[in-house]
Amino acid sequence: MKLIDLQKVDTFTADKPYRELLYDSADLRVLAFNFEPGQELPVHSHPADADVTLMILEGEGEFTGAHEMPARPGLIQIMPVGDPHGLKARTRLRMLVFIAPTL
Amino acid sequence: MKLIDLQKVDTFTADKPYRELLYDSADLRVLAFNFEPGQELPVHSHPADADVTLMILEGEGEFTGAHEMPARPGLIQIMPVGDPHGLKARTRLRMLVFIAPTL
Repeated sequence: MKLIDLQKVDTFTADKPYRELLYDSADLRVLAFNFEPGQELPVHSHPADADVTLMILEGEGEFTGAHEMPARPGLIQIMPVGDPHGLKARTRLRMLVFIAPTL
Repeated sequence: MKLIDLQKVDTFTADKPYRELLYDSADLRVLAFNFEPGQELPVHSHPADADVTLMILEGEGEFTGAHEMPARPGLIQIMPVGDPHGLKARTRLRMLVFIAPTL
């Protein structure tokens, strides 16, 4: 069993979004991204048959890419990882990403 | 793309935990469970090769089963779905469950 405590995933970095791999198996990868205001995860996609989940924990910003909309706590976008997706933070923002499967 | 707004998943029911299927594909299932104080998800397991993720959004309680420990916001347990797992709420508690894969 892997235990994750999101309260401890509280690092932010000035030069680019802080990224932390929280879990990785063949079935599921979990990543945390912490953004300072104005930082972004550029729009990208992967040629794989998997689902990607973007879950906003804290902060305000914009989902970018194929499914643009305001991002705020409690919003979750789930899409094929082939759909262009990204995130631009307006305030400090914390996001969890789930990718399933990873192979 | 599936959009989920957790702020709208705010139903609680007196007789048993409220359960809502938020997303379901071959790769990933996402469920919400909302517990009134004292309600529980009984310890159970599934004979499948998949990962189950239990993520506490709000409230206090206990993870039960093979990996007993206090449950509070920001804690995430990820384990094989064959590991006995459950949850007992002490306060109102909201939990997300991810199962990957689902087939």
